[in-house]
Amino acid sequence: MRDVFVVGVGITKFGVLWDKSLRDLAVEASLKAIEDAKVDKIDTIIIGNYSSGTFIEQEHLAPLIADYLGLNPIPAIKVENACASGGVAFKTGFLEIASGNSDIVLVVGVEKMTDLLTSRASYSLSLACDREFEGINGITFPGLFALIARRYMYEFGLTRKQLSLVPVKNHKNASKNPNAQFNNIITLEDVENSPLVADPLRLYDCSPVSDGAAAVILASSNLISKDTNPIKISGIGQASDTMALYQRDSLVEFKATIEAAKKAYKIANKKPEDIDVIEVHDCFSIAEICAIEDLGFFPKGKGGEAIEAGLTDIDGKYPVNTTGGLKGKGHPVGATGIAQIVTIVEQLRGGAGENQIKNPRVGLAHNIGGSGSTAIVSILEVI
Amino acid sequence: MRDVFVVGVGITKFGVLWDKSLRDLAVEASLKAIEDAKVDKIDTIIIGNYSSGTFIEQEHLAPLIADYLGLNPIPAIKVENACASGGVAFKTGFLEIASGNSDIVLVVGVEKMTDLLTSRASYSLSLACDREFEGINGITFPGLFALIARRYMYEFGLTRKQLSLVPVKNHKNASKNPNAQFNNIITLEDVENSPLVADPLRLYDCSPVSDGAAAVILASSNLISKDTNPIKISGIGQASDTMALYQRDSLVEFKATIEAAKKAYKIANKKPEDIDVIEVHDCFSIAEICAIEDLGFFPKGKGGEAIEAGLTDIDGKYPVNTTGGLKGKGHPVGATGIAQIVTIVEQLRGGAGENQIKNPRVGLAHNIGGSGSTAIVSILEVI
Repeated sequence: MRDVFVVGVGITKFGVLWDKSLRDLAVEASLKAIEDAKVDKIDTIIIGNYSSGTFIEQEHLAPLIADYLGLNPIPAIKVENACASGGVAFKTGFLEIASGNSDIVLVVGVEKMTDLLTSRASYSLSLACDREFEGINGITFPGLFALIARRYMYEFGLTRKQLSLVPVKNHKNASKNPNAQFNNIITLEDVENSPLVADPLRLYDCSPVSDGAAAVILASSNLISKDTNPIKISGIGQASDTMALYQRDSLVEFKATIEAAKKAYKIANKKPEDIDVIEVHDCFSIAEICAIEDLGFFPKGKGGEAIEAGLTDIDGKYPVNTTGGLKGKGHPVGATGIAQIVTIVEQLRGGAGENQIKNPRVGLAHNIGGSGSTAIVSILEVI
Repeated sequence: MRDVFVVGVGITKFGVLWDKSLRDLAVEASLKAIEDAKVDKIDTIIIGNYSSGTFIEQEHLAPLIADYLGLNPIPAIKVENACASGGVAFKTGFLEIASGNSDIVLVVGVEKMTDLLTSRASYSLSLACDREFEGINGITFPGLFALIARRYMYEFGLTRKQLSLVPVKNHKNASKNPNAQFNNIITLEDVENSPLVADPLRLYDCSPVSDGAAAVILASSNLISKDTNPIKISGIGQASDTMALYQRDSLVEFKATIEAAKKAYKIANKKPEDIDVIEVHDCFSIAEICAIEDLGFFPKGKGGEAIEAGLTDIDGKYPVNTTGGLKGKGHPVGATGIAQIVTIVEQLRGGAGENQIKNPRVGLAHNIGGSGSTAIVSILEVI
């Protein structure tokens, strides 16, 4: 396989963006990435998107985005893996170049979720669980992650405070990110007094419904120059798990994350201790706690204590979600996996502004779909 | 890039299959392909599907199918490019192996369209055009292809008889295909007396709404054996065109098909004259006529005469849609691109039963999405 590098990144503001359509957002992020990469030619476009068919009544996004970028007749492909659509699109773009089929690829993740009533957005999101055995009985993702949280509390004695510290940290990081959906700092009391969504998860345990897009330009080694601060993709691992939660041996271990991480670490020849900056999929606060354990940064059951000890803070041993995560930055589903890569690249280039951590060399992004039926882990490093 | 081979194929019956769910169909086709390939290990699954979200209220198909095949935790990816989802999934699987990331890949295309009222299925299909400029004004695909047909008639004097001969031939070929949705032979009079859908297109000019799945197993050269009659993938070309029809320079030339074919021929080092068996995307009868011209088999404007002269019959110079095409075999959207590959592989292996043509060495499959906004052309050959 050929080496592949990220040579440009672009992102829109995330939030409730009633003045921007899906195509506006995808084009804005893509043009920023193209400008950042200083490329004048693209061989292939990969689109990461979850469910534009149900959110905005438009399928077949790939040629649509190519068209609105003025890039046809180049090939354009859309990839869908629920909330991991962005991460899986990133891998698909990686393989385009690794195989030698393309030299320069644009990967853009996008979702437009706020044109619907929130209840209807919840319905669209619920199509990512096993509809015949889960959704049909009325459960949606807050309910599924509430089951995980309850079981985790029972097994490991996680406290309400430890759980609340996840969104408190992520809002704090988001407050310094101008593109984040939320710039307000929240307190433990704010989280504990927010409305109950699915016991024990409260409103501030849940990532929001968002609009937004993020894009990266990937290139082969013969096309990179020091000007664009190329960041190497050292390893990508992907795995799947049962679709329905009830079929799993454990509710508190995400098998797909564990398998995906194992592959990514092996390909990149890295260990958890080598990672300087981390993006994890905090769709719900319990998901961040499970992720930092399943990725090998802390032992199972110890994630809550690690967060309480400040180990995942921006100046901690393992900085997690330094630009706000899904909770603070926003979670336009198909954009999330690419937005994570944008944060990692910005950190590794030293361009993360007020959120910059000190001299990171290696970063990891973790993106899941559904209740962890898909997981993808990407490791990037400074060359 | 590494060489990639098709080492197994499987297909379900196509039709109105009220007793089978999407997951049943995907599993049935996949198991047939796995059995045919005699493999006991799969590295990655690629799913081609158009819009299960709107057709059956289930997204995130990739891990669902992996789960129901008992194959998790292997990586599973869903690809969507409207009616070209199958063809683009095939290419994605090809790159998995060409890059060296996987050695054995299952690609399965599937669609379950008949659980909805036909009017609702038409709505779902219409999401593949440009909704903001085409769909919103009420046009659906029969209308778009009717515009193409009218213009073609005006420019080249195509007759009603020539147009009707497309479905007559495709039903004749489907009559010998036990998996086809339609096994009835139809006459010119049947076509001409069928209800008008969008002038000049009549019911028998339109492919049906269908359920079905098709699967292929791809393998790298180190894993093939003569036992499984491996067929080499010699070249794949993909291209895009404007999303909306009104933006094109010509209504009668499909630019994406022309570009995709050019690339595929170049990579495969073949010319149109080298192709022995052809599958084209006859979603409407006019589409088959444009395709056989845009692929280089006949000059522009001469496709109707070629069909009338029998040149695309099963014993003609360029046999087209030998197992019935989309019109006769059925068109479960996401399955179609893979079903085309299944037909080409069966013909090249000499296993196409009553539809077998004489000693084909090279085959070509042509799959489009929307009104030709996506096109993908694959060339396969006997080694």
